[in-house]
Amino acid sequence: MSLTIKLHVHHRANLPTAFNPTKTKSLPSPIYHANALLSSLVYSPRRPRMTTSSVSNGAADRPPPVKSSLIDPDGGALVDLVVSESDAEAKGREAESLPRVPLTRIDLEWVHVISEGWASPLKGFMRENEYLQSLHFNCLRLNDGSIVNMSLPIVLAIHDEIKQAIGSSEKVTLVGPDGGVVGILRSIEIYKHNKEERIARTWGTTAPGLPYVEEAITHAGNWLIGGDLEVLKPIKYNDGLDHYRLSPKQLRQEFDKRQADAVFAFQLRNPVHNGHALLMNDTRKRLLEMGYKNPILLLHPLGGFVKADDVLLDVRMEQHSKVLEEGVLDPKTTIVAIFPSPMHYAGPTEVQWHAKARINAGANFYIVGRDPAGMGHPTEKRDLYDPDHGKKVLSMAPGLEKLNILPFRVAAYDTVAKKMAFFEPSRAQDFLFISGTKMRNYAKSGENPPDGFMCPGGWKVLVQYYASLQGEETQSPALSA
Amino acid sequence: MSLTIKLHVHHRANLPTAFNPTKTKSLPSPIYHANALLSSLVYSPRRPRMTTSSVSNGAADRPPPVKSSLIDPDGGALVDLVVSESDAEAKGREAESLPRVPLTRIDLEWVHVISEGWASPLKGFMRENEYLQSLHFNCLRLNDGSIVNMSLPIVLAIHDEIKQAIGSSEKVTLVGPDGGVVGILRSIEIYKHNKEERIARTWGTTAPGLPYVEEAITHAGNWLIGGDLEVLKPIKYNDGLDHYRLSPKQLRQEFDKRQADAVFAFQLRNPVHNGHALLMNDTRKRLLEMGYKNPILLLHPLGGFVKADDVLLDVRMEQHSKVLEEGVLDPKTTIVAIFPSPMHYAGPTEVQWHAKARINAGANFYIVGRDPAGMGHPTEKRDLYDPDHGKKVLSMAPGLEKLNILPFRVAAYDTVAKKMAFFEPSRAQDFLFISGTKMRNYAKSGENPPDGFMCPGGWKVLVQYYASLQGEETQSPALSA
Repeated sequence: MSLTIKLHVHHRANLPTAFNPTKTKSLPSPIYHANALLSSLVYSPRRPRMTTSSVSNGAADRPPPVKSSLIDPDGGALVDLVVSESDAEAKGREAESLPRVPLTRIDLEWVHVISEGWASPLKGFMRENEYLQSLHFNCLRLNDGSIVNMSLPIVLAIHDEIKQAIGSSEKVTLVGPDGGVVGILRSIEIYKHNKEERIARTWGTTAPGLPYVEEAITHAGNWLIGGDLEVLKPIKYNDGLDHYRLSPKQLRQEFDKRQADAVFAFQLRNPVHNGHALLMNDTRKRLLEMGYKNPILLLHPLGGFVKADDVLLDVRMEQHSKVLEEGVLDPKTTIVAIFPSPMHYAGPTEVQWHAKARINAGANFYIVGRDPAGMGHPTEKRDLYDPDHGKKVLSMAPGLEKLNILPFRVAAYDTVAKKMAFFEPSRAQDFLFISGTKMRNYAKSGENPPDGFMCPGGWKVLVQYYASLQGEETQSPALSA
Repeated sequence: MSLTIKLHVHHRANLPTAFNPTKTKSLPSPIYHANALLSSLVYSPRRPRMTTSSVSNGAADRPPPVKSSLIDPDGGALVDLVVSESDAEAKGREAESLPRVPLTRIDLEWVHVISEGWASPLKGFMRENEYLQSLHFNCLRLNDGSIVNMSLPIVLAIHDEIKQAIGSSEKVTLVGPDGGVVGILRSIEIYKHNKEERIARTWGTTAPGLPYVEEAITHAGNWLIGGDLEVLKPIKYNDGLDHYRLSPKQLRQEFDKRQADAVFAFQLRNPVHNGHALLMNDTRKRLLEMGYKNPILLLHPLGGFVKADDVLLDVRMEQHSKVLEEGVLDPKTTIVAIFPSPMHYAGPTEVQWHAKARINAGANFYIVGRDPAGMGHPTEKRDLYDPDHGKKVLSMAPGLEKLNILPFRVAAYDTVAKKMAFFEPSRAQDFLFISGTKMRNYAKSGENPPDGFMCPGGWKVLVQYYASLQGEETQSPALSA
């Protein structure tokens, strides 16, 4: 399971000379260090709790007892909807006799997400009761009166003819994009799919050009089907990356194995540059100062649908490996795994989902940056979301009270210190913001980014990727999911 | 305060002959009676609580002790932001020296709403922290961790030049549409007014033609200003209807005076027909069966901004008076008062506001019907909201747990029984739906609606109103707020 800790620094011979790899180890910046995390915590009504009980067992040389988790899954127990091997054959026969509902690639990603318990306590695609709560309140009320966060509607759309074919059946078979049986949805409920309302309430806009909307909603059916999910076997992609796809259960086991007393999750869908590394390393340092003995970083790239101009998953995973190989992040205290969710680019609404799913994976700290899950407005020349709203909304979100939210300031290239550092408005002119577009332009032109922006091995991965894209650019770029 | 109980049945001589006034007293329909309220309660996870303690004090001949309320205001105490008379002069002088923020008529309605505590515990126009919670979660978290419902952003927009004029001042003077000083907003916060996002998340659409949006948002400023409100004197309209505008405090006193042991609120912005009366009378009957001794109806028409084709407030108030005069509703157990809020027509989002405000006014039961606060989609030929979503969302809304939600089935004209009755799908062909448009066409053409649709005096008020409109119809109709 612990894939990344076996990697070691090697192959420094053929690095681009413009890089100085030793620089990348000098993080974090002492200027930032003093108060950055604390000062940025003003957004949060909750301070990280000093729950040091798990590490203060008196004898420093005696390892703390292995715990099943640092944070309870939402609803109290991790949902696991993969049927046992002994049941799979009978359920498979049952599935053959039921009305069939086709899944798109994104639907299948949601089946994956639900079946492994990332959306605990959700046990299947949402029925209307859950859909409405998600849409209006971003949370679900459980039978015991407690509240869990649930900001994105996790729903399955069907077309009129499928609804008609289902008729009065109480269960259906879910069929993957390759035609194979994926699972069964039981005690189904079919209700209207008001796309306009769903889009408006989820994204706060109905402007054309939202990537997830165009891919998964605009041409989807006018009905939603909810019910209890059973998956006949674990979802695999056979893309050479399945070993990175650790389930929440596997992650929790891994955290226990490493005797983590704090787990801080970092969600990303982009290459890791040294600004990211700065804040991850600094977060660890802060946690140590707070009394935790063994904070573990969950570096958790999103693996499902992303928009066409995001970097392909396999390239990102290779880039992340280099970051650990070259010691920018410490393999001993870092776990790299894939978060199987598709991306909505729904800003403050989506960041809650990203945080909530990591609770279920066992993380008790969540790092949130500028404009999480944001993008440019599809039709206007501005950010779609206020870049500060993500962390504000996250810190106030119902159902996330047990998670410690760690907002951070934006990192940029400090042209004086010649490294990535936290932006200081008082000397704004010293900082250089390197956007994805700018990074791509560096790579396209063969130019190196400023010294200290990214570790050499990671940058090389990107240069090769963008070079390969340039060859394809006369064709329309393929979706990167 | 108890305006309506002084009205008595009179003036039956000149009623249109097509009406049989005795019919209107034969409600409720025995067909509906048996299980309608109970069966419709399947939407609600909460059943009305049988809190009969307030009426079971043993001695039936001894009146129950006067209570300050049947239900606590949100946040525990009613907000009252009208300054004392002794302070008003000094505050008035202070106001003269501050930067001035102009209020529209709708802004002033919100000042009225906030100042009297309808939006308790809100103490002024929302700051960003409250705005974001309202927009994303439809509720606010209080300092003690508890949650109150707050589904509509109650915000004040200002233009760039006003923002500039405010500069670094920490307080501003609010100036009414007539140029008079209304109050002071203290400890202000100015933040961006992202209209598109506000509209999309509040209405679930951004289609052009939403009445409140066109009136109050589209041309409003690009900034919102929040802060703590002080109002120099109670808001009055001098339209001959101010005596109907009872504050939450006055309503609570009135309920105590009447020794109510249950108060059920009915929100409306339309004339009362016998279908409405059917369910209000039936609700009272059900409450008596549940063990309450003196349930009081709060008939609570909305008095703020409404769309151009809604009936004018003074006409509605006259119509409501007739309904009580003619005994369709019992003046002894009914209080008619004006709810000063403007109307958003935001369906499931707005109905929460309508219910929450009535908690603050002391109502512990809230009646919700088909498509509350709904309207036709402004650009498509369909309802803007699923007509069932209002009651579903209301029954699940965070912060409304202490309110008993009473959903009811749709009423229509039963052509067999020749009266308004609850619609029965099994004999759909017997029922006639009389929409606002159809009602208006009856009135315009001088034709009477079916016998038993509305009490004669109330209908006469409408006929005169629509006749007066026809005279004006070559001009564009005035807004009815």
